Amino acid sequence: MADLFAKIATDPSMQAVRMGKETGIYPYFKPLSETEGTEVVIDGRRMIMIGSNNYLGLTTHPKVREAAIEATRKYGTSCTGSRFLNGTLELHKELERRLARFMGKQAAIVFSTGYQSNLGAITALLEKDDLAICDKEIHASLVDAVKMAGCQMKRFRHNDMNDLERVLKENKDAAKMVIVDGVYSMGGDLARVPEIAELCRKYGARFFVDDAHGLGVMGPGGRGTAIHFGCVDQVDLIMGTFSKSFASLGGVIAGDQDVIDFIQHHARSFIFSASMPPANAAAVLACLDIIEADPSYVERVHTQSAKVRKALREMGYNCGESVTPIIPVIIGSEMYTVAAWQSFFEYGIYTNPVLPPGVPPNKSLLRTSYMATHTDEQIEKIIAGFYEVGARIGLIQERETVAA
Amino acid sequence: MADLFAKIATDPSMQAVRMGKETGIYPYFKPLSETEGTEVVIDGRRMIMIGSNNYLGLTTHPKVREAAIEATRKYGTSCTGSRFLNGTLELHKELERRLARFMGKQAAIVFSTGYQSNLGAITALLEKDDLAICDKEIHASLVDAVKMAGCQMKRFRHNDMNDLERVLKENKDAAKMVIVDGVYSMGGDLARVPEIAELCRKYGARFFVDDAHGLGVMGPGGRGTAIHFGCVDQVDLIMGTFSKSFASLGGVIAGDQDVIDFIQHHARSFIFSASMPPANAAAVLACLDIIEADPSYVERVHTQSAKVRKALREMGYNCGESVTPIIPVIIGSEMYTVAAWQSFFEYGIYTNPVLPPGVPPNKSLLRTSYMATHTDEQIEKIIAGFYEVGARIGLIQERETVAA
Repeated sequence: MADLFAKIATDPSMQAVRMGKETGIYPYFKPLSETEGTEVVIDGRRMIMIGSNNYLGLTTHPKVREAAIEATRKYGTSCTGSRFLNGTLELHKELERRLARFMGKQAAIVFSTGYQSNLGAITALLEKDDLAICDKEIHASLVDAVKMAGCQMKRFRHNDMNDLERVLKENKDAAKMVIVDGVYSMGGDLARVPEIAELCRKYGARFFVDDAHGLGVMGPGGRGTAIHFGCVDQVDLIMGTFSKSFASLGGVIAGDQDVIDFIQHHARSFIFSASMPPANAAAVLACLDIIEADPSYVERVHTQSAKVRKALREMGYNCGESVTPIIPVIIGSEMYTVAAWQSFFEYGIYTNPVLPPGVPPNKSLLRTSYMATHTDEQIEKIIAGFYEVGARIGLIQERETVAA
Repeated sequence: MADLFAKIATDPSMQAVRMGKETGIYPYFKPLSETEGTEVVIDGRRMIMIGSNNYLGLTTHPKVREAAIEATRKYGTSCTGSRFLNGTLELHKELERRLARFMGKQAAIVFSTGYQSNLGAITALLEKDDLAICDKEIHASLVDAVKMAGCQMKRFRHNDMNDLERVLKENKDAAKMVIVDGVYSMGGDLARVPEIAELCRKYGARFFVDDAHGLGVMGPGGRGTAIHFGCVDQVDLIMGTFSKSFASLGGVIAGDQDVIDFIQHHARSFIFSASMPPANAAAVLACLDIIEADPSYVERVHTQSAKVRKALREMGYNCGESVTPIIPVIIGSEMYTVAAWQSFFEYGIYTNPVLPPGVPPNKSLLRTSYMATHTDEQIEKIIAGFYEVGARIGLIQERETVAA
């Protein structure tokens, strides 16, 4: 009789975890005891946070907090049921109407997490013989969704239009959807949305954009990557998440009314899961109010991150193709990346180390990301830290003067 | 070139939805504009709620609201990141320690939804050649989890120990796990946990109990179905959810430390999803405080539901094997069930209609469920309603006196 749990004792990644914990170099699950958004307290030490997806800094905005508090007072702390049954509030319907308008689509449906949004939409629409054509760097939740759908999957080289066209040409007859991220979560680069849309039209494919890191950040008013490129009508479905710019938890799929209706009645991650708590929904509505009234949040996340990107590149860091508030610092070796993470951590800068399988082998990186609410002083301190730590541990060459 | 969206126009379930909406008999997605827990307002009308999983009525408890509000003030409205990276607060760690103790296990891991808890645990532990042996009535999220895991699956007849033993005997050599619900969400009956545990021991299977509807309800202090049966040590993994008794959103898996560590490092729905917002975590902690200090909530949900169950059975309703606050009213035909739902709705009682595929064909039912906070007056009104409406539409025989 084989034991299902036998794999636990011999699993190589668990051995790596145990070794990391024993040597004190274990960069994951660091509990924060306080957070002001741009600063956090870990093990009693205050640090600058450049490892968050809180791009607009709205998680601590007074109006967002107040909206969440008011919703808790009005509705309580939970809906204790599926949207399908007793878990739909007027608040959810209002949120769906507002998001559809914001995202430039007829209709929208909100899910309790971003992960479940991708699961729900993809598994509702793609069946056994259908084909998902996926960029190699799409988010893990989309890969899980395609796996759960049980449909066919082909992948194309990241943002490579020739490779995408090859796959489309080879699968002319299939009922198919091209699936990409709007903003790639590790590289901070953008999908080539207009070219992909054109190829989808040419080969009869539907087009899905996961804009988790683009919604609230890209395009006029933060209305997303498709609107940034002026081709929202050529994208069939756009996914967004609330645990980034929208200071909450949850996700949304926007598209044509009939498609959204279909997803609403077929997405098992929607039907068989409890709905968004009132406070979570209210926080998103408050964020929409804020960014629709005041464009400075969206503008500022770009100006602040552009300063860092320029400085890092001048110092000689490899920031890949980043054009967004996500700026990777590509290091290469796993060990060196963990050591660099540790050095920045000790300096007082919180970054996220990303190792395989999150990135290809020998492409390990520190993922850094910036917020509209990072002050100029914090940005200067971050840049100074990248110079000081980077020169000390040999990530960059030391120079006469620092470009801060 | 086949169109992926062609299925939308011809889908039979969407045709049923359109017909239901046109005839005005469409029982789903009714938006609530207000909720006091036991009463809700829909379309401007106040109704008694017996279609909620808010078993202890804690979603509107002042201490639970206050804890959520305080957490929002202290931490903001979101963690904007994975538990793995920047999304772990001390609050999450505290919640995991408290839940492990409450559930009688060494360790626990919390997920952002109950759905993702099942997905994460099952996909982490079960691989291609492993075998999931599932009760036929387990929750949809477990079926989805097994599908995503890509492992083998066999099902046994609901709570049928001979059928379970047959499957175990036929798969003696496989690395396997038996998967059941503690409390079945539609029937309100209990898994035969001691007997299943004994069979698991005999045939070398691991044992997983989804106690979404049992945690906070069953056993001394609401500590769950396994503790109710006195055999928590014979269950390897216990899942709980926070969108029922715990007045929030999220879920938990409890078990031995090494198994939980393994899940923590392998569950993609944990790693690739944002963590529980501070308010959601704080609400669960407040619920634990309340039910650990005051056993009356757990006691009262049973006394109130027992009154209804006794009265319904005396009136001649078929309530199946219910022994919990979930009491099905089994009607049979789909049309008659929807008509009955409509009649109760118009009377001012909110129930949930459950049709195939939620139940087997010709086993359609109204799912009713009760709360510790239903007042005696509300319970009397519910019982009177079941008599009045049931007799009028022929669900039960009219009698001289009503047993209220």
